[in-house]
Formats: sequence, C-alpha cells, structure tokens
Amino acid sequence: MKSKTVIVLGADGYLGWPTCLHLSAAGHDVVAVDNLVRRRWDRESGASSLLPIGTMPARVKRWRAASGKAIVWRRLDMLNAAGIGALLAEFQPDAIVHFAEQRSAPFSMIDRSHAALTQHNNVIGTLNLLFAMRDAAPDAHLIKLGTMGEYGTPNIAIEEGFIEIQHEGRTDRLPYPKMAGSMYHLSKVHDSHNIHFACRIWGLRSTDLNQGVVYGCATDEIGERPGLATRFDYDSIWGTVLNRFCTQAALGIPLTVYGQGGQTRGFIDIRDTVACIKVTLDNPLERGEYRVFNQFTEQFSVLQLARRVEAARAAHGMDTQIDHVPNPRVEREEHFYEAKHQGLIDLGLQPHLLADTLIDSVISMVEHHRFRIDPSLLGLPDVDWRVGRRDPHPAVALEAQPARSAQ
Amino acid sequence: MKSKTVIVLGADGYLGWPTCLHLSAAGHDVVAVDNLVRRRWDRESGASSLLPIGTMPARVKRWRAASGKAIVWRRLDMLNAAGIGALLAEFQPDAIVHFAEQRSAPFSMIDRSHAALTQHNNVIGTLNLLFAMRDAAPDAHLIKLGTMGEYGTPNIAIEEGFIEIQHEGRTDRLPYPKMAGSMYHLSKVHDSHNIHFACRIWGLRSTDLNQGVVYGCATDEIGERPGLATRFDYDSIWGTVLNRFCTQAALGIPLTVYGQGGQTRGFIDIRDTVACIKVTLDNPLERGEYRVFNQFTEQFSVLQLARRVEAARAAHGMDTQIDHVPNPRVEREEHFYEAKHQGLIDLGLQPHLLADTLIDSVISMVEHHRFRIDPSLLGLPDVDWRVGRRDPHPAVALEAQPARSAQ
Repeated sequence: MKSKTVIVLGADGYLGWPTCLHLSAAGHDVVAVDNLVRRRWDRESGASSLLPIGTMPARVKRWRAASGKAIVWRRLDMLNAAGIGALLAEFQPDAIVHFAEQRSAPFSMIDRSHAALTQHNNVIGTLNLLFAMRDAAPDAHLIKLGTMGEYGTPNIAIEEGFIEIQHEGRTDRLPYPKMAGSMYHLSKVHDSHNIHFACRIWGLRSTDLNQGVVYGCATDEIGERPGLATRFDYDSIWGTVLNRFCTQAALGIPLTVYGQGGQTRGFIDIRDTVACIKVTLDNPLERGEYRVFNQFTEQFSVLQLARRVEAARAAHGMDTQIDHVPNPRVEREEHFYEAKHQGLIDLGLQPHLLADTLIDSVISMVEHHRFRIDPSLLGLPDVDWRVGRRDPHPAVALEAQPARSAQ
Repeated sequence: MKSKTVIVLGADGYLGWPTCLHLSAAGHDVVAVDNLVRRRWDRESGASSLLPIGTMPARVKRWRAASGKAIVWRRLDMLNAAGIGALLAEFQPDAIVHFAEQRSAPFSMIDRSHAALTQHNNVIGTLNLLFAMRDAAPDAHLIKLGTMGEYGTPNIAIEEGFIEIQHEGRTDRLPYPKMAGSMYHLSKVHDSHNIHFACRIWGLRSTDLNQGVVYGCATDEIGERPGLATRFDYDSIWGTVLNRFCTQAALGIPLTVYGQGGQTRGFIDIRDTVACIKVTLDNPLERGEYRVFNQFTEQFSVLQLARRVEAARAAHGMDTQIDHVPNPRVEREEHFYEAKHQGLIDLGLQPHLLADTLIDSVISMVEHHRFRIDPSLLGLPDVDWRVGRRDPHPAVALEAQPARSAQ
C-alpha cells in the first residue's frame, strides 16, 4: 500500500499518540500536532497520568530509535485558524485524523465556563479545520473522532450515522437523531452536523468515527517500552470506566458503580482504536462523501464491567467489593441498547474482545505504578450534572499509602 | 390574563422590536435587551434599513407616548455571561423570548471568521442564557427562535421537532433529523440540541419556534407610526425573499430568483410572528418540557412567490420581469416539501395568509422610501456557498436614481 502523509491532530492525547505510532509503523508519514493543553489542565487541576509520559519531542525521538521511523512534531492550537491553514498548505496531507478536542464529559459539566470552553474549543476548532481543508487540502480524507454518546439511549436500534425512515408513505435516509448526554457529547453532535454540511457544500470527504468507551493502555507499538507510553487516567474527570475499575481493583478498594449500573454503552480496546483508524485510512472516500462508523466492539452495562473485573480478580483468589454510589450524571440506568457496529468489521477490523488477560494486564500495570497514585483523585465524583462541581470530597483512604502528588 | 414579566433578547431587531410592542400592548411588563451589534454591522458593511428606525431609547419613549405603557431598555451582550445572570436575577422573568442571534445565512457564509462568529455568538450566547436560567430563573419559560432551515428538505414530511420512528419492530419518538443549509442554520441546530439537553438535565422549560421566512413590515402596534417602525432590509445579506421581491417590484427592476426557484419553504407574515410569540407565552409548559412548533403559515416555492408579486402588480396594470440568476446557495431546486405547522394553530393562532393587499402595502412603503435606496445593495448576491464572498459586483443600474448612501 502506498505511503500516505497523515496529520494527527491531538497527538499528545491518550489515543492520539498510539495512533501516531500505529500509522508510522504501517509506513505512513505522520505529522503529530497538539497544543499540549491537556498537560496544562492536569497541572491546574492536579490530575495526572498514572503512566509517566515523555514530552512529545522525547517520545518522537524514542520512536525513531525504536523503529527507525520519523514522526514530525508540531505544537499548534486548533483555534489558530491561520496556523491550521499553513499546516495543511505545508504538508498537503492525504488524510487528517482529528482527536484534538476537549474529551471529558465531567470536565464539560463543571460549570458554565467549562461548558463554553468545551463547545467553543471543539466546534470552532473543527470549523477552522474545515475551512482550512476547503482552501488548502480539499482532497484530504478527514477522519474525525466522534462518540457513541452522540446518540444517547434511544428505544430503537442505533444505526451507523444514518437511518432509513418510513413516514406517511414516503421514505428517506436521514441523519440518525441525536440525544447527547453532556455538554461535551453535544459538542461532538455539533461537529457532526458541521462536517456533514462541509461534505455536502464543499465536496470534502470525511469519516466520522463514533467511538465507544476505550480501555487499556498499550498497543503493539507501545508494548513494554516505557518511553513510548501513552497517558493512563484514573481520576473521575478523565479516567474511562474500565480503566478506573482496574485501578480500584489494583488498590483493593471498592469499584464504584454510578447508580444501578444498568447504563449500557459500547466499549473498545485501545488496540482496536488504532486499528480502526488504520482501516478507515486504508479505505478512503469519494469527494463529498460523509461516512459514519460506530467504533466499538462490544456492549456492556457498567455493572457487567464491574462484575468482569470482580471475576478476573476472583480467578486469582482475590475478593472485590462493588459499591453503588449516587449517580452524578442524569441518565437512564435501565434501558434498551442495541448499537450497530458492522462497518469497520466489513473493512477488516479484527476485534480484541474483552478478556481476563487484558484486565489482568491493566491491573498489573497499576500495581507497578501504585506509588504514583494520588489518593485525592480516587474520591467520589465531584461533578454533578445537575449543579456542576460540588465542594471537594475527602479522598478515599488508601491504607499504608502515603498521600503524594503524582506531579 | 395575569400580566407577566418578559425579557425580550434581541429587542432591536426586525422581529424583536415588534414583539416587545405586541407583548407590551397585551399588558405584559417587557424588558427589552440588545447589544445593538446589528447597527454596527450595518455601519461596517454599508447595509441599512429602508425604513428609518429610531434608537432604542427613542422608540421606547415613543411607545410610552402612544400607549401609556413602559418598556424597560437594557443594552447587554449575550456573551457577557455575568451580565445575563444579573439581568435574570434582577427581573425574575416569567418568560424570556430569545431573538438575540446572528440571523443571516449569507452573512454566516462570507468566510471562516463570519462562520465562527455566527456559531460562537449564537451557541455560546444561548449556553450563557441556559446556565443563567438554571441558576437565577429556573422556572422561566424560554421561548427560543429557531428556524425551519434546521430541517433542510427531507423526502418525508417534516414534523414539529420530534418524529415517531418504527425500526426493526421497536418504536421511539426522537428529535427530527436535521440537515441545515448554512453555518447560520447549523448554529440553530446546535442551540436546539443544547436547549433540549438543558430541559432534560436541569428541568428548564422551553418552546423552540422553528420559524419560516418572515415578510411584511408592520404590526398592529407599529401601524403607521413612523417613530415605532422596525427595520426593513432589502439587501442580499439581510433581506428576506418576499421583502426583496417587493423592493425590486417597487423599483421596476427584475425580480431575481435563485436558480430554478423550485426551492420551497414555509413563510409567515410579521403580524403572525408576534401573535405566535404571544400564544406561546400564554401557554406555558411544565418544568422539564421541551416543545417545538413550526412557526409558519403557508408554503411557497421561491418562483411561486415571484409569480404572486408579478400578479399583484399586473392587477394594477404593471409588468414585472422575473430573472433566474445563478444560485449562490447549494440547495435542491426541485424537491418534496411538506412541513407540519399545526401546534400554534391549535393554541389559537389565526393566520394572515399572503394576500395581494400585503404585497401592495409593502411595495407602496418601498415606493414611499425610494429615495433612501442604496443601489449598490441591489446587485446580485456576492456570497456564494462554495467559495464565500466574491469580488463585489457592479450594482444594478437604477434609472433616474442617483446613487446615494442610505446611512
């Protein structure tokens, strides 16, 4: 397959960095772009990746040493419209992978300013990219990360982006109705509408990947090389649910399920995330096409996931406690959920389904880095959908674990 | 009926000002709010209302003299979140009518900065309002102006906001799919999603009025009183289509139909716009309810409208030329269109259907103010959906009409 020039926006993030490595390993010329704002948010809020992560220049250098392949690194903010235009003009990318958004639902629900920041950053950043593509890279394939959370939990099956509707004797295939569950998820709904429009009006081409909740911390490229690690979040703002359960299990504290735990979502292994990006890149579109894939491999309820972790621990003779805590979100806790996810399989994705070995490996990683845990980040969630950020909770006590900052 | 305190946001606009008068005449306590940015955009771009409009203080004073009723005037920008919060806390409104958005599709398509301005101003302004309502006026009824343009032109009937979908043996009532046709229309789609969310999560109550294209220039309250006039736009950025056709007819120049003119839309008389706001206000909602009405009274294609103007002129023995000009928009010019609009009728709206007398009265108003026409504003549209603003066109020549600025 011919090598492509691919710009990865949001390259410093949990998924952006492994994507850079996976595409570089596949022989593509990768330009890694990020504004590093997540590192600033971490410093400001006291959150921190459990896995130590190198600077972007250090990780790029380490990758060069490990693979012999070069990744170009550029620091750039999506709100810098002129900078985005210049970037596209300079590299003339075949494809652009766009992870460069504020991606936490609780962060977006902290207060008005965090909601406005999220929608402004995500929506205007993506608008800037669309205009830059129109003017400087109209043939590039935009691979945009959306979220399964755009759909909410309708009482009918969730299709991949579009649904054929029969109504009063007529039929049309229309965008699937959206009922997002946070200011963050709404920002992705807004993006989807804007991108679809740009494809219709300007003939851009884009694949919108509505991703489920990602778990895991290592891809084939990262492997056991510490210098290539991607971030691993375990706090209630940035940590995804299975990663947080594994962290709690490793520390021997109760897994905290929000409410009844019947909330069902799509989930995906981080190794499949990068594989999905690659198969999408390998299957480009015609000008004007807007394609949507639901990017996850299995559905679980939150309680089912907790039980999976409990079972994986039990296999090693360990007891795990599951606590139901008041749900800080406003969401249905018992509902129908059936979301299609055939498109990426049809393109050749071979899923890694959730196995005890994955749970074991994440738990073992957490145990290895246990000394870096900040107990204040393990408390109950302090952002409530109804009122925003509440007063700080006391941290969960970690026995025999001195409180230390992970910074 | 008990008098209510109503804040009208965007009170200096084409529809905001007549709404203030109509609600004040009905006995409500009206607080008129605007940032006056539209007057600045006019100064910057050379556009101008054909009807001279007084300052807000002058119009409020004139209304007091004419009716004996007081309207409170406040200058405030929706992007001033603290100011919006203080406003709601001060007046404790029963209802908030929200017109305060950039409302021109061509303006939003000029270039990247106008697209970003439109989405930022509209979406973040409305977000600010939602948070202010949550914190300072959670019981108020938000009456928000959306647009029929949120739906696009689907091949099935357009319902009022929600549609019941049968799919694979299951059924749900979901938000009607949206396919908006400009960056402006998209901003209203984004608003609708955000407002619906705020109703679900915070128990706010809101009616989203998806309005058609408005025509006319006078309501019962404005009547023939020049000091109370609302703006009348005839340029290709701000002018609505029937008002522009009437202007062209009054000047004896060809009516310019974009493309084939088969584009069909919903239309509404400005007198019905203010009546719709009033019946919505008179029929409040429960906490948490989100209601959508399609606010128009008749459907016409653009060519049908031109023919109506031609016929109204012919009744007075005058010939009218209809020109088809290249369509600056990307839209279907022949399509199915059937949009429901029963909700407001059920609440008691008594529509003013389009009549020759209305066309005659608008034409006669334009003839009266003919000396204020700026011919440079009558040229072909210079904003193309594909490329943005083109080089300025030469103005249409107005015989025996000296070029003069309307400012």
